[in-house]
Amino acid sequence: MSEKKVVIIGYGTGGMTAAAYVKNYCRECKVIVFEKRPYPIYHPCSLPDVISGYLKPEDIIEKEPMTPGLEFYVSTTVTRIDRDNKKVYYKGPNGEGEVEYDNLVLAMGSIPWAPGPLKKALELNNIYTLKTPEDAVAIRTKALNSKTAVVVGAGAIGIETALALHELGLEVYLIEALKEVLPGALDPDVGKIAHRIIEEHGVKVFVESPVSSITESNGKLVVEVKEEKIEADFVVMATGMKPNTQLAAEAGLELNERGFIKVDDYLRTSDPDIYAVGDLIVTKDYVTGKPTVSMLATPAFHQGRIAGLNIAGYEKKYPGTLAPFILQLENLAVGGVGLTKTRAEKMGLKVKAMRIQAWDKPHFMPDAEKAYIKIVYDPSDGRILGGQVACKRCNASKYVDLLSALIRNRATVEDLVYTETSYMPRVSEVYSPLFVVGESILRRLKKI
Amino acid sequence: MSEKKVVIIGYGTGGMTAAAYVKNYCRECKVIVFEKRPYPIYHPCSLPDVISGYLKPEDIIEKEPMTPGLEFYVSTTVTRIDRDNKKVYYKGPNGEGEVEYDNLVLAMGSIPWAPGPLKKALELNNIYTLKTPEDAVAIRTKALNSKTAVVVGAGAIGIETALALHELGLEVYLIEALKEVLPGALDPDVGKIAHRIIEEHGVKVFVESPVSSITESNGKLVVEVKEEKIEADFVVMATGMKPNTQLAAEAGLELNERGFIKVDDYLRTSDPDIYAVGDLIVTKDYVTGKPTVSMLATPAFHQGRIAGLNIAGYEKKYPGTLAPFILQLENLAVGGVGLTKTRAEKMGLKVKAMRIQAWDKPHFMPDAEKAYIKIVYDPSDGRILGGQVACKRCNASKYVDLLSALIRNRATVEDLVYTETSYMPRVSEVYSPLFVVGESILRRLKKI
Repeated sequence: MSEKKVVIIGYGTGGMTAAAYVKNYCRECKVIVFEKRPYPIYHPCSLPDVISGYLKPEDIIEKEPMTPGLEFYVSTTVTRIDRDNKKVYYKGPNGEGEVEYDNLVLAMGSIPWAPGPLKKALELNNIYTLKTPEDAVAIRTKALNSKTAVVVGAGAIGIETALALHELGLEVYLIEALKEVLPGALDPDVGKIAHRIIEEHGVKVFVESPVSSITESNGKLVVEVKEEKIEADFVVMATGMKPNTQLAAEAGLELNERGFIKVDDYLRTSDPDIYAVGDLIVTKDYVTGKPTVSMLATPAFHQGRIAGLNIAGYEKKYPGTLAPFILQLENLAVGGVGLTKTRAEKMGLKVKAMRIQAWDKPHFMPDAEKAYIKIVYDPSDGRILGGQVACKRCNASKYVDLLSALIRNRATVEDLVYTETSYMPRVSEVYSPLFVVGESILRRLKKI
Repeated sequence: MSEKKVVIIGYGTGGMTAAAYVKNYCRECKVIVFEKRPYPIYHPCSLPDVISGYLKPEDIIEKEPMTPGLEFYVSTTVTRIDRDNKKVYYKGPNGEGEVEYDNLVLAMGSIPWAPGPLKKALELNNIYTLKTPEDAVAIRTKALNSKTAVVVGAGAIGIETALALHELGLEVYLIEALKEVLPGALDPDVGKIAHRIIEEHGVKVFVESPVSSITESNGKLVVEVKEEKIEADFVVMATGMKPNTQLAAEAGLELNERGFIKVDDYLRTSDPDIYAVGDLIVTKDYVTGKPTVSMLATPAFHQGRIAGLNIAGYEKKYPGTLAPFILQLENLAVGGVGLTKTRAEKMGLKVKAMRIQAWDKPHFMPDAEKAYIKIVYDPSDGRILGGQVACKRCNASKYVDLLSALIRNRATVEDLVYTETSYMPRVSEVYSPLFVVGESILRRLKKI
C-alpha cells in the first residue's frame, strides 16, 4: 500500500481531531502537522481561569501532541499552499522547507478582530486581546497592579474575562455595542437575565453602548461610550474573532463574503483535496440547512472527526451544527442551542417562542433556584428549533445537552413533556424546567 | 354542567399530581383527597438528608396541599371502597364518613417490607425502617447517641442512609443479599464501581450477604451475616417496599402475583372508574412494552398527570416508563435509565453492552475525573436500550437525562456520537463520555 501524505495546518480542536482520526483510521497515512505555536496545543476556553488564577498557564498547555505518531512541527508557519503541485511551504526554527501532500486540512482557526473605529486602538499600550495563554498571563500581570479595567464586548469571552478581573478585586466595566449581552448566542430577553446576574456580581454592564474611541491620557486609557468617558488602567478587547484565512485566500480557495472558507457536506473546500474545519469555515446549520458560522470547540471537534474519517477513506457527511454553548461559572450559568428567535426571524422563518421560569431543584432545598428556559419552536408542528437557559447555579449544561439531543432527533415539544428525567432533590426537581416549558407550549398549541 | 366528584386516596407524588391535573383541567370536577398523614405531603427522597442534618424535618413537610381548591382531609384513612355504589368510607379525626365518587384515584403508595426471615426482627427495639419524616428523626436521634449501625439493603435508600449515618461519625455496615449494590437498578459491574466509591467514604460494604438473623443481646443488636456476627447499636432495614394495596384487594380490583394493581394504557384499573398511579401499580416498560414495577417519583408524576388528564376528559395513553434514577451526593453519583443487561437477559432479549471510562471534565481541571458509562444496545440495529453511569462527582444526572431523551426517541448509538454537547472546561469535556461509548460501539458494529 503506498503511503498517503496528510498535512494539517493548525492544531486547535479541529486540526487536533482531524489528525487523530486520520492517524487512527488510516494505516497508510502519514500525518504531518504544522503549528505556529512553540507547543502543540492549549485549551483556549480556560484562558479566563488563567486570568483569575484558578488555573496556571502550564495547566492549559499540552507539551506533547494529543495523538502519538504524528510528524509534528511547532514554531512553524506555513507560508504558501501550492495547489498545482500539491505542496506547502513552511518556515520554522530550522529554516524553510516544503512538503508534498495528498490531502491537506486547513485548521488555522481565528484571530482577534476589532470593529473599524477601534482597530487602531489595538496598537495602544495597555490594550489587550485574549487568544493565547501568553495573553492571559499578560492580562493577569497587569490586573494584579491595576484598579480599573474595561472589557469591550460581552460575548462569552468578554463576560468571563470581566468576571475573572472582578474576582481579582478590580472595578470592571463590561461594554457591549449590541442590545444585550451574548448577542447572537441568546435572544435579548434571555441576555437581559444574564446581564442582571453579571451585575449582581458587581461588574458594571453597559449595553447598546458602542465604544466611539479609546485614547491614552496620563498613562490611563479613556474609553468613550455614548456621553460617558471611562478611565481605566487597561482595556481588554473581546470584540470577536475573524477567520484566519489569508493563506486560503492566497491559494485561491473559495471564501464567503466575510472571509470564511466554503466547504461541502464532506468538509472539502473548493479544492477537493483540501479540507477545512473549525473557526475558519462557513458550515451548515443543522436546523435550517443554511450556511452558518460557529466559532466553538464542539463543532470544530465534530468537523475534525468527519474530515479525518473522509481522508481515511470513509464517506461521512457532516450533518451541520446546532452550536450548543455554555457559560457556566460558580454563580452564572447560561447556554443555548439551535436557533434563537432573533436569528429565525432574520431568516424569515415563522417561529414562536416561550420563556418560563421553573425550579432547577425542589423549592425546599437550601440552594434551590429557578432557571429561565426559553424554547423556540415551529408552531405548525411543535418541532423544537432552539433553546436557551439562564440562571445562577442551575445545571444549564444538562438542559442544553438534552435539548441538543432532542433537536437533533427532530423532536417536538411533546417530547419535552414526555421525556422522563431523573429525580433527586440534591440535583433536580421531579419534573424538569424543560417539562414545564414543554407543557406551557402544548397548552398554547391546544395539544394537551 | 353537573359536578363530577373525583376522590383521590393518598397524596404522594402520584396522587398530588393527579389532583393538580384534575383541578386544573376539569372545571366541573370537585376533587376530594384523603391522606392518612397529619399533613398533606412530604418529600421522601430527602429523608436521608434529614438523618444527616442537612435538612430539618420541617423543610421536607408541606403544610398546605400543593394545589389550591381541593377538599382535603388529613389524618384520614379510607377504610373501604364500595364499587357497586361508587362510594368510599373513611375514618378521620371527626369520626367516620362516606363520600360518593364518579372517579377514584388510588395512590396509596408503598410500605416498608422485609424478607420472610427478617419480618419478625422488625418488632425488635432499635430496628428502624425509613419511610416518613418521623422515621428519619427517630433514626437521627438514635444515631446521635450511637457508635455503630447496620443498614440492611443497598438500594438507593440504604446507600444514602448508610452515608448519612457515616457523616454523623458512626461506624456503618451496609449489607446486601444480592450480588452487588443497587441490584435491579444497575448491572453488577457498574454496581461494583458504586460499591468501591461507597467503601472509599469509609462505609463497610458486604454484598452477596443475606442476613440470617437479627437478635437482641445486652441492649445491642446482633446481625448475623454468613459466618459473621455484627454488633450494632441499631439497625435500619432498607430491604424494600411493597405496594400498599390491601384496600384495592378488598375491593376486588385485579392485582398481579406480587400484589401490584394492574392498569391499562390509560391507567384505569380493572374497574374503569378507578385509576391507580405510582408505587402500587404494575406499569409498562417503555422499551419492551412488558409489565414493570418502578417505585420512583418520576414515573409516579407522569402517571398522575396522565390519570388526571384522562379524568378531566382528555384521552391520553401512558407510554410506559424508562425509570430514570439518580443517586447523587457530594462524592458519589450513580444513575441509570432503561434496560440493564441483567434485566434484558432475564427477559430473553439479545442485547449487547459496552462500558467505558471517559473524562467528565477535561483532564487538566483540578476536579476532573473519569465517569464510567455503560450502554445496553440492540446489536441488530444499534438502538439504545439502556444506560448506566457511576462516578464520584460527575454530572450523572446530565448523562441519565440525555439517555432518557434518546431512548424515548428510539435513537441509536450513532446519535450518541452525533449529538453535539456543550463544552466549557469547568463543566464538561469537548466530547461527552456518551460520545466515547457511542463511538466504541459504532466501531464494534463496524458502522463507523
